[in-house]
Parts: sequence; structure tokens; C-alpha cells
Amino acid sequence: MGNRDRILELSLKLLNEEGAQAAGTTRIAQVLGISPGNLYYHFRNREAIVRGLFAGLEAEFRAMMVDDVVPPILPERFAAFYLRSFDVAWNYRFFFGGLHHLLRQDEELAASYRQLQAWAIDELEGIVRQLVKDGSMEKPRSKNGLRSLGLNTWIIWMNWIRFVQISGRDQVTRDDMIEGVGQIFDLLVPYLDPAFEKAARRVLTRELRSNPT
Amino acid sequence: MGNRDRILELSLKLLNEEGAQAAGTTRIAQVLGISPGNLYYHFRNREAIVRGLFAGLEAEFRAMMVDDVVPPILPERFAAFYLRSFDVAWNYRFFFGGLHHLLRQDEELAASYRQLQAWAIDELEGIVRQLVKDGSMEKPRSKNGLRSLGLNTWIIWMNWIRFVQISGRDQVTRDDMIEGVGQIFDLLVPYLDPAFEKAARRVLTRELRSNPT
Repeated sequence: MGNRDRILELSLKLLNEEGAQAAGTTRIAQVLGISPGNLYYHFRNREAIVRGLFAGLEAEFRAMMVDDVVPPILPERFAAFYLRSFDVAWNYRFFFGGLHHLLRQDEELAASYRQLQAWAIDELEGIVRQLVKDGSMEKPRSKNGLRSLGLNTWIIWMNWIRFVQISGRDQVTRDDMIEGVGQIFDLLVPYLDPAFEKAARRVLTRELRSNPT
Repeated sequence: MGNRDRILELSLKLLNEEGAQAAGTTRIAQVLGISPGNLYYHFRNREAIVRGLFAGLEAEFRAMMVDDVVPPILPERFAAFYLRSFDVAWNYRFFFGGLHHLLRQDEELAASYRQLQAWAIDELEGIVRQLVKDGSMEKPRSKNGLRSLGLNTWIIWMNWIRFVQISGRDQVTRDDMIEGVGQIFDLLVPYLDPAFEKAARRVLTRELRSNPT
């Protein structure tokens, strides 16, 4: 692994543990045992590191959306997709925790983030639309019902870890994450075909059982 | 208005405009045109100001919950309650925007916040339970369905303004707020009695029309 990747890996760890505001370049160089000069050679400043990390988040997120959501959407696959999405959120939790502040500091990052977010909400809407098409879900009767489901899914997904941390659970467990999956799953439940719901929920329950707190 | 109240009022304005991380005591004293000594006489530090502001948020939030949600819950009243709740969130938007950071800095504030949050989620669950009791809503078929609705309502409510800001809409408009009301309302829609839904939505639509962007 090159120095650039080592810096990114360690920064991700530090930022996740201490929050997006905490770790500066001096600290990162110190923990990594390299000179500030070496660090600056790879990243001009902290913003550049955060942009490098965001590129990783974006790649993982887009890969997941493309790999996991192939029509027709089967319930087991769908549950696995939700679980994986929370792993991605967990791996980059510093980002969603400190989002408002990070975007205020860096217009370039803000533009990239907004593009990803708009795409993600469209995709989430597309997924529920596909579920309706597959006959796995009833269409909501309200006008923008599918859009609203996609948007609510996004908002809960992106804020879940922050919510758990804010609630005072310092050690966010695997079960907390599966609870988050349950919260976004519950958005769809009133519309889902009961057989689809049952099969998807079986996967989530199995995950819960295999990971005791 | 005494100095203490003036400091709180101005701090709220500054924090809301510039974000929870921006305004320090020096800045607040300067903008207020008082000496730092005068400021420190009323508030030992920035944390004390934030705690004072949180007390205001808590009072407004609790009053709203008690005033507005009297059984049986009528649709017009219910819509008005949702609208009012977004006004409260707006008035204290700095708090929800910078929440994770603020709570990390102040254990006393964190404890008060967590108590309010736990109470609020219980109350939101109680409201949907009451809607079921009133015959205005079907009970969700999943085991913790009412709890899950209360929790999702809370998460979307507390993160909505941050979401709008993050999305790059610098000027959060009244319509953005009514869209947020629509998002939490949509959580209940699949379970609601159509007549109740229609009456509540009429109030929201009227609000939208009376406040063009």
C-alpha cells in the first residue's frame, strides 16, 4: 500500500473515531509517523483528504447500487442490499455525522456530494418503482408517493448512525445497524406483498440472531 | 428585556445563521455591543448559552406537545401540530444541525437532550396510538409498527432542515418546511382513514398556496 492510501486509511479511522471536526493534518501525520511535509506532498490540506475519502464512499455506494439492485428484485437480495448499505454508512460515518460543517467548508465537496445525493434519491425511487413493477409492492395512492418513499429512505439511512450516537449509545453495535435497516424497511411494509415482506424479514432476523450484542 | 434575554435572543440568531460551530462568546459580545465581562456575568461560557437556548427549545416543544395533541385528534388540528413542530425546528435549527458536536462538548446538555428525545419519541408513538384508538388510522401489522412510526417521524423531523441545507438550498423557504411536513405525513398515509387524510392534506395544501416561493 502506498503512502497516499495509508494516509487515507488512517484518516478515515481517525475521523470516524473522533468526529469530522477533530482530526487535523498535524495529528494525522503524527499518528501515521510521517512528517507533515510528506503528508502535504500527497494532500494539500485536510479538505483534500476528506475529498479523497468521499471518492471512496462514492465508489462503494455506486457499486452497491449497481451490483445489488437487478430486476426483478428478490426479497433476500433486497434485504442484503439494505444491510450492505448500512455497512457503507458505517464505514464512512464521520462523513454523515459532520456533513453540514464539511460541506460549508468546501464548495467542491458540496457539489460532488449533492450530485451523489440527487442520484441516490432517484435510484431509491427507482427501486420502489421496480418493486411495484415486479408485483412485490402496491403503489402508494398519494401523488408523489414513490418519490416520497425514496426520499424518506434516504433521510433515515443517512442520519441513522448519527441518531444512534446522539442517543448516547457510544458503542454502535451491529444490532443498532440492523435496527436501522428495520426502520427503512418499515417505510415499505404497508405496501409490500406479505410473502415478499416475510422472506425479506427472515434475512434481517437471521442477521440479528447471528450477531448477539 | 433584560441583558440575559438579549444575549440569548442574539445568540440564537447568530447560531442559526452561522451554524453551531461559528459563534463564540467574543463574537456574541461584540455584535451585542457589550463587554465580554458583562457577557460572562450572565453566561460562564458558550456551553452555558447553548444550554440556555436548549431550555427555550425544550419549553416550546413540550408546550406544543401538550397544547396540540388532545384526544380525539382531529385532522385539521393534527396538520396544524405538524406545521407548528416545523416552526419549532426552524427556530432552533442551529441545534439540530450541530447536534452531534454540541452533545460531545457538553455532557449536561447531552443528558437533557436525550431525556427530551426519549420523551418525544414516546409521545409521537402515543399520537399514532391515539389515531388508531380514534378510528382515524389502521394499526400497522408489524410487531413494533407504532413505535417504528414514532421513531421514523422523529428522525425525519429532526433532520429535515439539515437535509434541505445540505441539499444546497441556502434560503430555506416556508415551502421547504411544508414539504418536510408532507414527508412525515406520508409515513402515516398508508394507514390513515381516507377522510382524515383528505382533511389534513387540505390544511397543508392551503398553507402551501398561501406562501408562494
